[in-house]
Amino acid sequence: MSTVENQLEELQTTIEDEVPNDITITEVRYEGPELVIYTRDPKRFASDGDLVRQLASQLRKRITVRPDPASLSRAEEARDQVLDVIPDEAGVTDLDFHIDTGEVVIEAEKPGMVIGRHGTTLREITQETGWTPEVVRTPPIESSTVKNVRNFLKQERNERRDILERIGRQIHREEMSDDQWVRITTLGCCREVGRASFILSTPETRVLIDCGDKPGSEDEVPYLQVPEALGSGANSLDAVVLTHAHLDHSALIPLLFKYGYDGPIYTTEPTRDLMGLLTLDYLDVAAKEGRAPPYESEMVREAIKHTIPLEYGDVTDIAPDIKLTFHNAGHILGSSVSHFHIGDGLYNVAFSGDIHYDDTRLFNGAVNDFPRVETLVLESTYGGRNDYQTDQEDSERKLKHVIKNTLERDGKVVIPAFAVGRSQEIMLVLEEAMREGELPTVPVHLDGMIWEATAIHTTYPEYLRDDLRERIFHDDSNPFLAEQFNHIDGGEDERQEVADDGPCIVLSTSGMMEGGPIMSWLEHLGSEADSTLVFVGYQAEGTLGSRIQNGRREVPIGGRGGRGSSLTLDMDVETVDGFSGHADRQGLENFVRTMNPRPEKVLCVHGDERSTQDLSSALYHEFNMRTFAPKNLETFRFI
Amino acid sequence: MSTVENQLEELQTTIEDEVPNDITITEVRYEGPELVIYTRDPKRFASDGDLVRQLASQLRKRITVRPDPASLSRAEEARDQVLDVIPDEAGVTDLDFHIDTGEVVIEAEKPGMVIGRHGTTLREITQETGWTPEVVRTPPIESSTVKNVRNFLKQERNERRDILERIGRQIHREEMSDDQWVRITTLGCCREVGRASFILSTPETRVLIDCGDKPGSEDEVPYLQVPEALGSGANSLDAVVLTHAHLDHSALIPLLFKYGYDGPIYTTEPTRDLMGLLTLDYLDVAAKEGRAPPYESEMVREAIKHTIPLEYGDVTDIAPDIKLTFHNAGHILGSSVSHFHIGDGLYNVAFSGDIHYDDTRLFNGAVNDFPRVETLVLESTYGGRNDYQTDQEDSERKLKHVIKNTLERDGKVVIPAFAVGRSQEIMLVLEEAMREGELPTVPVHLDGMIWEATAIHTTYPEYLRDDLRERIFHDDSNPFLAEQFNHIDGGEDERQEVADDGPCIVLSTSGMMEGGPIMSWLEHLGSEADSTLVFVGYQAEGTLGSRIQNGRREVPIGGRGGRGSSLTLDMDVETVDGFSGHADRQGLENFVRTMNPRPEKVLCVHGDERSTQDLSSALYHEFNMRTFAPKNLETFRFI
Repeated sequence: MSTVENQLEELQTTIEDEVPNDITITEVRYEGPELVIYTRDPKRFASDGDLVRQLASQLRKRITVRPDPASLSRAEEARDQVLDVIPDEAGVTDLDFHIDTGEVVIEAEKPGMVIGRHGTTLREITQETGWTPEVVRTPPIESSTVKNVRNFLKQERNERRDILERIGRQIHREEMSDDQWVRITTLGCCREVGRASFILSTPETRVLIDCGDKPGSEDEVPYLQVPEALGSGANSLDAVVLTHAHLDHSALIPLLFKYGYDGPIYTTEPTRDLMGLLTLDYLDVAAKEGRAPPYESEMVREAIKHTIPLEYGDVTDIAPDIKLTFHNAGHILGSSVSHFHIGDGLYNVAFSGDIHYDDTRLFNGAVNDFPRVETLVLESTYGGRNDYQTDQEDSERKLKHVIKNTLERDGKVVIPAFAVGRSQEIMLVLEEAMREGELPTVPVHLDGMIWEATAIHTTYPEYLRDDLRERIFHDDSNPFLAEQFNHIDGGEDERQEVADDGPCIVLSTSGMMEGGPIMSWLEHLGSEADSTLVFVGYQAEGTLGSRIQNGRREVPIGGRGGRGSSLTLDMDVETVDGFSGHADRQGLENFVRTMNPRPEKVLCVHGDERSTQDLSSALYHEFNMRTFAPKNLETFRFI
Repeated sequence: MSTVENQLEELQTTIEDEVPNDITITEVRYEGPELVIYTRDPKRFASDGDLVRQLASQLRKRITVRPDPASLSRAEEARDQVLDVIPDEAGVTDLDFHIDTGEVVIEAEKPGMVIGRHGTTLREITQETGWTPEVVRTPPIESSTVKNVRNFLKQERNERRDILERIGRQIHREEMSDDQWVRITTLGCCREVGRASFILSTPETRVLIDCGDKPGSEDEVPYLQVPEALGSGANSLDAVVLTHAHLDHSALIPLLFKYGYDGPIYTTEPTRDLMGLLTLDYLDVAAKEGRAPPYESEMVREAIKHTIPLEYGDVTDIAPDIKLTFHNAGHILGSSVSHFHIGDGLYNVAFSGDIHYDDTRLFNGAVNDFPRVETLVLESTYGGRNDYQTDQEDSERKLKHVIKNTLERDGKVVIPAFAVGRSQEIMLVLEEAMREGELPTVPVHLDGMIWEATAIHTTYPEYLRDDLRERIFHDDSNPFLAEQFNHIDGGEDERQEVADDGPCIVLSTSGMMEGGPIMSWLEHLGSEADSTLVFVGYQAEGTLGSRIQNGRREVPIGGRGGRGSSLTLDMDVETVDGFSGHADRQGLENFVRTMNPRPEKVLCVHGDERSTQDLSSALYHEFNMRTFAPKNLETFRFI
């Protein structure tokens, strides 16, 4: 009998001792980081709201209780009972019964009403039916990504259970080593922006954190081939942690599965969905640009199948000696600061991922409060000594001013924007300005992936800034559903109509004008002298966006007949800074200054050479901590 | 056809173009780092002394010319011809003909006379016989180690040729990566003394430098299990380099073969032999102390079979992108500073190994002159701010004074000493003092491995200090052959005789009085108040030597009857410092100060935490270079 089986047997005995005599436990097993308890008496469990919590705290495990399939009422019968318990206003859109696990997945427009105050409605469902309810939100805006991911996971449910059980046994294996050390190896994004990737290792465990591409340098991928990474076999990794979905952190996650990895990916639910959206688009773009994609779309599905979603604040065992907790990073939807607690009190490391320190319209500012943390790995995108950004209020004022002027002269406003994050921030600015009469209410057309990305945002309001979340939850005043927002889903015909029509605003990808529908908008509107092109995001050197910003007015366009040609840009061109998703230099310093507790060591990464060294030196002098600006391919030892 | 075969074919064509038309080349192949040219006309090659040198410089390869076996005269016939050519005074003791390679190994008391001025005699041998001569020295003192190693290599000659060919093809493989970086990973001896071990790696190649044990902490071995070392398979290493034979650098080299390594070990010839002697003794000691030895003696033989000996100054390809050159380190016989030239002019790293900066009686001081060197990995044993040693002249004066006093009162002198290095240094002091009348000529008894180690020293006089070498070469006044030196080879009986006899000096292992024949000498002489026990080497804390130095006089002895008992030490106890094989703090600073060129970066290793940090800080302040005191398990990137 393996040690894991011994462990499970002992756990079952302990649980049987703890619960009242009339509750029968039929099986105890691991599924990923969870301990799943099967019982013939799910109703009895549900009647005691404290029982699961007591067990969890005693066993120091995350616990799920499921009915023994033998004790279940039939699905048809349960369906009516479930719908009886849930109030109509919850807007249930789907019920999905899984006889193998006794779970019923309830998709509803208002998940909060399915859950009930402190979970009372959920418990009532179990008490009535014996089934274990799981609640997901019906996307307020239909999202093909969310739909596809959910359908795919439903279809792969059996294989996924096997995967989770294997991972669970791996997580709860016996520790082998009596050695003690903690190391970080840098595989990318050191003294550069892009290809974020790290290995966190102990004698027992190796975790890969992020695995991104380097925008504009397709050849420069993380150093996965070195022995510390995948050189000693992809399955020498215990876990992969993804801080957020931007491609410079996520693009090569699916590649790991091509290399033979078949372990878990820990990330938030919205990051999982956005990663699906963005990596599939990444493959698309590669194909369109005639580059061989590094993996097939099948690998994206593998990545999704192996994802174990965690919520902010969940403390989760991901290895015998490592607990992972995600915290809001304020950068994009689902972005996380990843906190690793290593050994039983031995050491703590936090990876910032990308962060925004102050609140934005979309998100609360990054969390920097931890039980313990000795080493911080900190992004340094704007770590340079002069990297101070315009105040967002000033930026918004300027943006509204530019838009107002353009609309007043009957012009149109075209804003190239990144689909995820900045587009939604601009949408919120526009919605408020129009609602409050600062701007006339004109159509705001969303083109490219922006609509889809917005739909994903509305599916996960829990991850948005608290007052925004409240508006969506309680007031039915979801700003993303405002009438003026229009999804361009009619292709060139619709764009032509918009172009022929009156004043409006267009948000379109790609954000740096490297292909995408924004190129069409240039063709349609580029020659209109009354219209304005407004840059609201960073334009990397060498991109068309950057060249236009720098004064270029001859713009190459695809030519719908297939031949390349060019047009002369007659639009006004404006730039409004200050909408970055990254903390600026002041924000980074504030993040560290107010951090609780203050770390002993900081590794400054994810910034060019100057930014990382400036920030490293400033933090050292200001806070008297040991700071480093690592190179790629170095290993630091902490214990 | 593999790329190596293509390469060899091209080389053969080039060589055929370069040599005169009447020389036929029948085959060209790699054996380890050498390019071996087989020819039907070895005599023609031999007649032009410059031809091989020209080819070597044009092809940038080390070249050996061998006769095609078909063109060879019979061995019996050649034997007489060879002996005819070599002058009788050379003292030939063995001739060994190898028909497969056309080589004749000539063992002679005076190899110089077999070689002749600028190699004229050697060339004459080839011209007369067609055979390629290889010369080795007949040990002036019979050494069972040297004899065993030579016999073993003779017996394994065929397998060794296969090994060398495989290694040769590996070294000359096509480079695969167009990436460029240079890294060092620390596997041991950082902030500690003992278990020296490093990985030097490029995208193409991984080299292990040293693999030692930690005296007094048998459990603490180098971190070989991490993926950067053997974790990704022992054969992911391209080469192993051994700086010298002391066990804290060599003890675990044979273990690599147990783990499946079957590549080359580069070291000097005397280091190979001393490693054989010391690692076999290491296994013996482990067995005697009831510890499970980490490998079997068979693995020592594997290590010897895979050794490719290099001489100081030989520039040798050990991988497609790395050239290795050894330089004298002044520490013990065959000890080397290892210089790595990486890429074609990309980067240069020197590993000091253990060094002695100043000349000693045995050795010239360490070489610190290189074509280029950007990073130095420097030992720091005596790197602490107060680690200044007594001048050797003062030490010798004190030693002679102590000995003289003891002999004058008819006492005996017992010196516990390490077999390799310090014993020979003391022997040279005693020989000179007796020759010059400073000390009376009394018997000097050598016990334990000292005699054997001395025999190995006399086999390789090329590695000794130049004036000592001259004495051995030209004057027939080999000090180690002085009459007063007596090898204790009669066991307890002989020791009893010595004890019963008049004044004398005893040098015996172990150097720290942790077992070995020194324990017998204590039993025989410990109660003699007129005799003196003299410490001349470092006594590690916790050893019996250290306890006696600190005043303890009750000494546990084995008891020849089998039961442990103890004796009361009545001998005088004296300590004479200053005979260390390590540079002291001043020596380390001088080594760096006079280094040419001065490196940009220094990693201070092989010293306790204080010593490495003191030295790192001093070198930084004094020479304004980047210095580090690494921890074990860290990786530094240089390019």
